[in-house]
Amino acid sequence: MKKKAILAYSGGLDTSYCAVYLSRELDLEVHTVIVNSGGFTADELVAIEKRAYELGSVKHEVIDVTQRFYHDCLRYLLFGNVLKNDTYPLSVSAERMFQSLAIAEYARQNKADYIVHGSTGAGNDQVRFDVAFAVIAPDTEIIAPIRDKKLSRQEEIAYLQQQGFEMSWEKAKYSINVGIWGTSVGGVETLTSHLALPDSAYPSQPTATGARQIEITFEKGEPVALDGEKMDSVTLIQHLNVLGASYAIGRDTHVGDTILGIKGRVGFEAPAALMLIKAHHLLEKHTCSRWQLLHKDNLANWYGTLLHEAQYLDPVMRDMEAFLASSQGRVSGKVTVRLQPYRFDLLGVVSPYDMMQSKAATYGETNDAWDARDAKGFIKIFGNQLKIHASLQDGNV
Amino acid sequence: MKKKAILAYSGGLDTSYCAVYLSRELDLEVHTVIVNSGGFTADELVAIEKRAYELGSVKHEVIDVTQRFYHDCLRYLLFGNVLKNDTYPLSVSAERMFQSLAIAEYARQNKADYIVHGSTGAGNDQVRFDVAFAVIAPDTEIIAPIRDKKLSRQEEIAYLQQQGFEMSWEKAKYSINVGIWGTSVGGVETLTSHLALPDSAYPSQPTATGARQIEITFEKGEPVALDGEKMDSVTLIQHLNVLGASYAIGRDTHVGDTILGIKGRVGFEAPAALMLIKAHHLLEKHTCSRWQLLHKDNLANWYGTLLHEAQYLDPVMRDMEAFLASSQGRVSGKVTVRLQPYRFDLLGVVSPYDMMQSKAATYGETNDAWDARDAKGFIKIFGNQLKIHASLQDGNV
Amino acid sequence: MKKKAILAYSGGLDTSYCAVYLSRELDLEVHTVIVNSGGFTADELVAIEKRAYELGSVKHEVIDVTQRFYHDCLRYLLFGNVLKNDTYPLSVSAERMFQSLAIAEYARQNKADYIVHGSTGAGNDQVRFDVAFAVIAPDTEIIAPIRDKKLSRQEEIAYLQQQGFEMSWEKAKYSINVGIWGTSVGGVETLTSHLALPDSAYPSQPTATGARQIEITFEKGEPVALDGEKMDSVTLIQHLNVLGASYAIGRDTHVGDTILGIKGRVGFEAPAALMLIKAHHLLEKHTCSRWQLLHKDNLANWYGTLLHEAQYLDPVMRDMEAFLASSQGRVSGKVTVRLQPYRFDLLGVVSPYDMMQSKAATYGETNDAWDARDAKGFIKIFGNQLKIHASLQDGNV
Amino acid sequence: MKKKAILAYSGGLDTSYCAVYLSRELDLEVHTVIVNSGGFTADELVAIEKRAYELGSVKHEVIDVTQRFYHDCLRYLLFGNVLKNDTYPLSVSAERMFQSLAIAEYARQNKADYIVHGSTGAGNDQVRFDVAFAVIAPDTEIIAPIRDKKLSRQEEIAYLQQQGFEMSWEKAKYSINVGIWGTSVGGVETLTSHLALPDSAYPSQPTATGARQIEITFEKGEPVALDGEKMDSVTLIQHLNVLGASYAIGRDTHVGDTILGIKGRVGFEAPAALMLIKAHHLLEKHTCSRWQLLHKDNLANWYGTLLHEAQYLDPVMRDMEAFLASSQGRVSGKVTVRLQPYRFDLLGVVSPYDMMQSKAATYGETNDAWDARDAKGFIKIFGNQLKIHASLQDGNV
Repeated sequence: MKKKAILAYSGGLDTSYCAVYLSRELDLEVHTVIVNSGGFTADELVAIEKRAYELGSVKHEVIDVTQRFYHDCLRYLLFGNVLKNDTYPLSVSAERMFQSLAIAEYARQNKADYIVHGSTGAGNDQVRFDVAFAVIAPDTEIIAPIRDKKLSRQEEIAYLQQQGFEMSWEKAKYSINVGIWGTSVGGVETLTSHLALPDSAYPSQPTATGARQIEITFEKGEPVALDGEKMDSVTLIQHLNVLGASYAIGRDTHVGDTILGIKGRVGFEAPAALMLIKAHHLLEKHTCSRWQLLHKDNLANWYGTLLHEAQYLDPVMRDMEAFLASSQGRVSGKVTVRLQPYRFDLLGVVSPYDMMQSKAATYGETNDAWDARDAKGFIKIFGNQLKIHASLQDGNV
Repeated sequence: MKKKAILAYSGGLDTSYCAVYLSRELDLEVHTVIVNSGGFTADELVAIEKRAYELGSVKHEVIDVTQRFYHDCLRYLLFGNVLKNDTYPLSVSAERMFQSLAIAEYARQNKADYIVHGSTGAGNDQVRFDVAFAVIAPDTEIIAPIRDKKLSRQEEIAYLQQQGFEMSWEKAKYSINVGIWGTSVGGVETLTSHLALPDSAYPSQPTATGARQIEITFEKGEPVALDGEKMDSVTLIQHLNVLGASYAIGRDTHVGDTILGIKGRVGFEAPAALMLIKAHHLLEKHTCSRWQLLHKDNLANWYGTLLHEAQYLDPVMRDMEAFLASSQGRVSGKVTVRLQPYRFDLLGVVSPYDMMQSKAATYGETNDAWDARDAKGFIKIFGNQLKIHASLQDGNV
Repeated sequence: MKKKAILAYSGGLDTSYCAVYLSRELDLEVHTVIVNSGGFTADELVAIEKRAYELGSVKHEVIDVTQRFYHDCLRYLLFGNVLKNDTYPLSVSAERMFQSLAIAEYARQNKADYIVHGSTGAGNDQVRFDVAFAVIAPDTEIIAPIRDKKLSRQEEIAYLQQQGFEMSWEKAKYSINVGIWGTSVGGVETLTSHLALPDSAYPSQPTATGARQIEITFEKGEPVALDGEKMDSVTLIQHLNVLGASYAIGRDTHVGDTILGIKGRVGFEAPAALMLIKAHHLLEKHTCSRWQLLHKDNLANWYGTLLHEAQYLDPVMRDMEAFLASSQGRVSGKVTVRLQPYRFDLLGVVSPYDMMQSKAATYGETNDAWDARDAKGFIKIFGNQLKIHASLQDGNV
Repeated sequence: MKKKAILAYSGGLDTSYCAVYLSRELDLEVHTVIVNSGGFTADELVAIEKRAYELGSVKHEVIDVTQRFYHDCLRYLLFGNVLKNDTYPLSVSAERMFQSLAIAEYARQNKADYIVHGSTGAGNDQVRFDVAFAVIAPDTEIIAPIRDKKLSRQEEIAYLQQQGFEMSWEKAKYSINVGIWGTSVGGVETLTSHLALPDSAYPSQPTATGARQIEITFEKGEPVALDGEKMDSVTLIQHLNVLGASYAIGRDTHVGDTILGIKGRVGFEAPAALMLIKAHHLLEKHTCSRWQLLHKDNLANWYGTLLHEAQYLDPVMRDMEAFLASSQGRVSGKVTVRLQPYRFDLLGVVSPYDMMQSKAATYGETNDAWDARDAKGFIKIFGNQLKIHASLQDGNV
C-alpha cells in the first residue's frame, strides 16, 4: 500500500510541481489540501480543485478557517492595534500561520505519513509550516521538495512539461497573495530599497472619487456593524476591503526582519485592516485608561512580533490574548471614518464609556472636579522626587 | 524697593492681565520674558515686546531656545520616532517644557522674588511651569493669577479696560499654538468627541497641487540636508514645515491623557515632524537590528510619555537619551518622500548601512548564505520549546 | 438627627482620637469598622471592639476580607512572583488597599455622610484611603483629622485624657503592622539609611534549630497542600508564617519610593510570602516557556508597582490579572523547601509539566531531538543578522 | 605548507582530543589558544601550556581578557543588577562569550584557515563559539570535531591512548567551571529536577564561622574599595570571591532556557557577583529615581537574556550599555555587608546622593515640604482617572 502524503496545495507552480513529484517520483498517495482563510473566491477554489485532480491528487480537501482565523487571531491583532514596525498589519504572516495549523491538524487526524509544503529555503513560510507541522503532527515526516532540491521555476516547468502537463505558468511580474487581512505585492521594486511599487503593481485600481463617510460600530473591541447594519465581523471586514479598495486605501510598503535574520520588503494593500485598526485605536483612546493604553502598546507589539515569527503556539500568546481581551470591556461605540482616494480620516467617536465626556470631570478651561488649591498641592507633591533629586546636585554635605 | 517678578509673557490676554495685575495690585517690578522655541516670527516678537512695555514691564527679554530645543529634545523625539498614541508628535508638550525651563533659569540667574505664569488650573501647562520653576528655582515663589483667582476672559478684559488698556481681545474661534514641532488647534469641535475640525480651523490652507518628490538626508539620525542641500537641522525643519503646510500635510486630531488624569482632544498640523519621523523610521528599518527596533519602540514610547507629563528633568530621561543616541550610529542615508495634497508617501531609501543590501545575505528566492539543510536544522531547533511544550499537553506520565 | 460617620478603626491612638473627636467635637454618629485581612487574632478583635464602644462608637463592625484579599490580590502577587525592588512582597501596600476598599464599600452600602481615616499627611496610606473612598463612595465626604489638624501623639493623648479616657498609650519603640503577607517594622534605624534593625525589633524571635524540609504543592499557581496535606491557601499561608517565623525566615529591609515621591525604608518579616514566591518561581522555571517568563517578569513588576501606588482600581490591573492567571495553566507540582535558621533553600521540584523532563528533548551531553548538522544550520541562520550587521562595518561600497 | 588551525584549548579531554585529531588526522598546523577571563591560576596555565605542546601544538598562546571582560561586560551586569530568572549572575554565559570573542579575533589577526572548538551539539557554548567566529572571522572555516563526530568520552580516550597519550582522564563526578563571576557545578543531581546538589559537590568548603562586616565602596556604580582600601574592580571581585567562598556564600541552583530551546539546570557558587549585585542594587534604591529603577529593571533583564543567548554583538547591546552607564551617575557611596555562613545581609548605605536623606523632603511622620491641604489636592487629582472610569460603570446616559 502506498504511503499517504498530505500536500498543502495552493494551485501555483511550486505546489503543482510537488503534487506530480510526490506521486510519480516518490510513489506516494497524494492528498491535496487547500486552506481558505478568506482570500479565495468560490471560483478560484473550484479551479484549484480541478487542477489538483488533474495533477494526480487522489483526494482534494478545502478547509475553510476564515471564522476561526478571525476569532483566534485577527480579533487580537485588532484589540492590540497591531501594525508591525508601525506599518504592516501582518497580513501574510498571520494567514500563513493559520493555514499551517489547519494542514497540520488535518494530517494528524488523517494519519498522514508525510506532510508536504512548497516553500523555498529563503523565507518565513517554511518556518511557519515546519514549526506547525512538527508541533502538531510530531510523528509525521515533513517534505519540502522545492527547498530541498533548490529548484528554479524553469526546472519545475520543465519537469511538469516532461511529465505531460502543458499548463501555462507565465510568471506574473509581481507575486501577489490575497488575504482577508491584506493583499501583499512583491517583486521588481521591492527587491531594491530605493524604488517604490507603481500603482499598477496592485491587483485592483481605484474607481471611487470624492469623499464618503462610514460608521463602524464596535462592541467590546470587535466590529459588529457598518453604517448601522449589524453583520458578523468577517463579513464586515470583507465589505470594508471592497469599499476601501475602490479608494485605493491602505497601501504601503513594509520593511521588516524575517525569522531568518535578513531584512525584507513587501508592498501591501490592506484597507479593512488599516481602517479598522485606526478606528479601533481611536475608540480606545476615549475608553481605555492611560495605563491600559501604555501597557497594551508594548504587549501588542510583542504579540505581533511573535506571531510573525511563528510562535503562535507558545503559551505566552494565550496569556497576551487574555490581557488583550480583558482590555476591551469598554471598547464599545461608533467611529466615523471618511474615505477619500488613497487616504482616510477618523472624524470622531460616540461611546457610552467615553472618558472625555464623563460628568466626573471635563476637559476645558474650567473644571468643577478640583480647584486651584488642589492643583497647586498636586503639582507640589507631583514634583517631589525631581526637587529632591535636584537638591542633591552636588551631593549632601 | 519693589520685589522683582519674572512673568512668562506671551502677548495674549492671560499674561497681559498678569502684567498689569502684578504691577498695580501686587506692586511688583514686572520683568516680562518670552521664550521663542521656533514658533514666533521676528515681527511677532517686536509686537509682543511693544505691548509688554505698554502694560508696565520694566524689562522685556526674548530668550531664543530653538537650537537648544532641537538639540536637547526634538532630536531625541526623532531618534525615537515618538508619536504619542501613534498620532501626536508632542508639539506643545515638548515646547512648553523648554519654555518653562528657560524661564526658570532666567529667574534663578536674575534672582527673582517671584516667577509668574498665566496658566489656568485645568490643564497640563501649569504642571510644566510649576515643576520646572520649583526644581530649578526652588527659592522663588510661584504666582499663577489666572489659576488662583479662577478668572474668566470677561473678568480679565473688564479689569484691563478699567485700568485703561483698550486693546482688542476678541476671542478667536480656535485657540492656536504655533511651534516648530507642530501647530495645535483647539476649540468648538475638539471639545466634543464626535466632531472633526473643519479645514478652515487650521491657520493656513493648502496652495500646492500635484505631486512633489523631496529627498531628506540623515546623518546618525539627524536630518542634515534637503534635496542634497546641506543645512542645519532647525532650518531644515522650518523648510519642511512651510513646504508641508502648502500641501496641508500632517494634520490630525490627538486624543490623550492629561497629567491631571482627564482625557483631552486637540487638532494639530505638524508637517515637518510627521514627514521626518516617518522618513527616519523607514531608514531605521533598513539600518537597525531587529532588537534595536523592538527596544527603541518601547523606550521611546516612555520617553514621549514622560516628556508629556513634565518629567523631562528626571534622570531617567538622560538614560533614555543615551540609549537613543547610541542607536543612531548607522541611521545615515537618504529617504525619498513624495508630497501630495493632504498626504505623503515614502518611496525608498539609500544607505551605506542598509542591511537589506548587504552582500552577506539577500532577501529573495535564493540565498547563498545558507542552504536547505541549514534551514531545516534551524527550524527544527527553533521549534524545540514549542515541541517540548506540546508534548506535555496532558502532563508527563 | 446626627449625621453618620464611618471610621476606619484600628484600636490605635490615632483612630481612637478620631472616634472621640468625631462624636464630641463634630457631633457625628460614629460607626467604627475594622477590616481584618488576616493580621488580627480573635482576641485582638474583641479587645478592639470593647475599646471602640468605650470611645463612643454606636456600632462596631468587623469585616473579614482575608479570603477575598487572597483571591483578588495575593494570588496574583504570587503568580507574578512580585517582590518590589526585588525585595519586598508589598505586605502593607496590598493589605491597606483592601482595607480601604472594604471600608469604602461599607460606607456606600450604609449611606454614610462621612468616611474617616486616621492617616497623617506624610505617607502612602492616606492615598490608598482617599482614592478608594473617592472612587467607590464618591458622594461621601472624607475626613482625616490627624492629617488635617497635623496632630502630634502628645496632643492626641492630651485631648483623650481631657475627655476622660485614661488609656495607656506608651509609644512602642517600633511601629509594627502584622499582616498575612508580612509584618512590617519601622522606627529608629529605618529612619536612617545606614543602620540595620536589630533582631530584637522583630515581634517574634526564632525558636527552631537545625534543618527541616517541607513540601509545598501548587495547582495552577496556587498553593494547595503542605507536606501532602490539602488545605485552603489562606490556611496554608498562615501555617507557613508560623513555621517560618520560628526560623526567623523572610526578614529584610525594603527601601522604596512612596507615592508622594520621597524614599522610605522599612523592615519586614514575611516568611510565607518569601517562601511561596521563591518556590512558585522555581516551579515556573520548569513549567513556563521562555517567553512567558520574560513577559511575566515585566508585567508583574508593573502590577506590583501600580498596586503599591494605589492604582488597584485601574482597569489595567484586571488585564494584568487575566494575563497572570492565564500563565498559570501548568504551574502545578511539588516544591521541596529546606528551612534553616534565618534562611531557606529550594531543593527541587516534581511536576507533570516539567519541560526539563520531557521526552521530546533532554538537557545533557547527547540529544536525540537534533544532530550536529541541525545545530550547525541553526547557529548559521541564528547568527545571520549579526553577520550582516558586521559586514557593513564600514558601510556598503 | 600545512594549513593553520586555531584551537580554543582548555586543557580538558575534549580539546585535547581535538589537538591530536587536527594534527594527525587532518594534517593541520595546530595553534592552541587559551583565554583567561579570570578563572585560571598561573599554575594551571603553565600545566595547560605544557600539555598543549605535548599534544602537538606548534604554538600555544595565553590571552588574558580579565580586565576587558570586566570593563566590557561584568560592569554592565552589575549596573543592571543582572540575575537571570532572579537567580543566576550568568557566570558561564558571559565568560564563554568573551573567550569566544578573543579566540575569533586572534584567528582573524593570525590569518587562520580553521578555527576549532571542542563543544558538543547539545548546549549553549557551541552557539557562542560559532556565532563569534562567524561574525568576527567570517572567512575562517569552523571545525567542531566533538559535535560533528558525536564522540563519547570513551571514544576520545581510546583514540588518545591509541595515539600514545596516556594521560589520566578520570571523569570527575561533577563538571566544574571556575570563573571570576562564579563557579558552575553540574552533574548527577542537576540532571534531575528534584534533587539538590550536596555541599560536597562544590569545589571549596566553608572555613569561616561567626559574622564579619565589610564595607564596599562604589563610584558611579563600580566597586572601587573594600573596607576603605582602594583597589581595581577586578582585584576587588577576586578578594570578595575568596572571602565569600570561606563562608560558602552565593550558592544556588539555576534553572533556565538554553538557546536551543530546552531547559537546563546548573548549580553555582558566585559569592562576589551576588554580594556586589545586591549591595549595588541597594545603593541604587537610595540614589536612583523611581523611573530609573523601573526602566533599568526591564532593560537589564533583556541585557542579561541577550548576553546569555549569544547576542553580545548585536548593536542593541551597546545601546543598553549606554543607558546603563548613564544611570550610574550618582550610584556612589558605601554599602555595609554582613557575612555569615551560607548567607549575607545588607546593613545599610551612606551616599552623598542618598535621596532618603535630602533636606528637600524627609520620610517620617511630619514633613515640611508640603501640608495636609497639598496632600488632599494631590490625591484628589491623582485619583481623577479612576473616578472618571468608575463614574462610567454603566455607561453615560
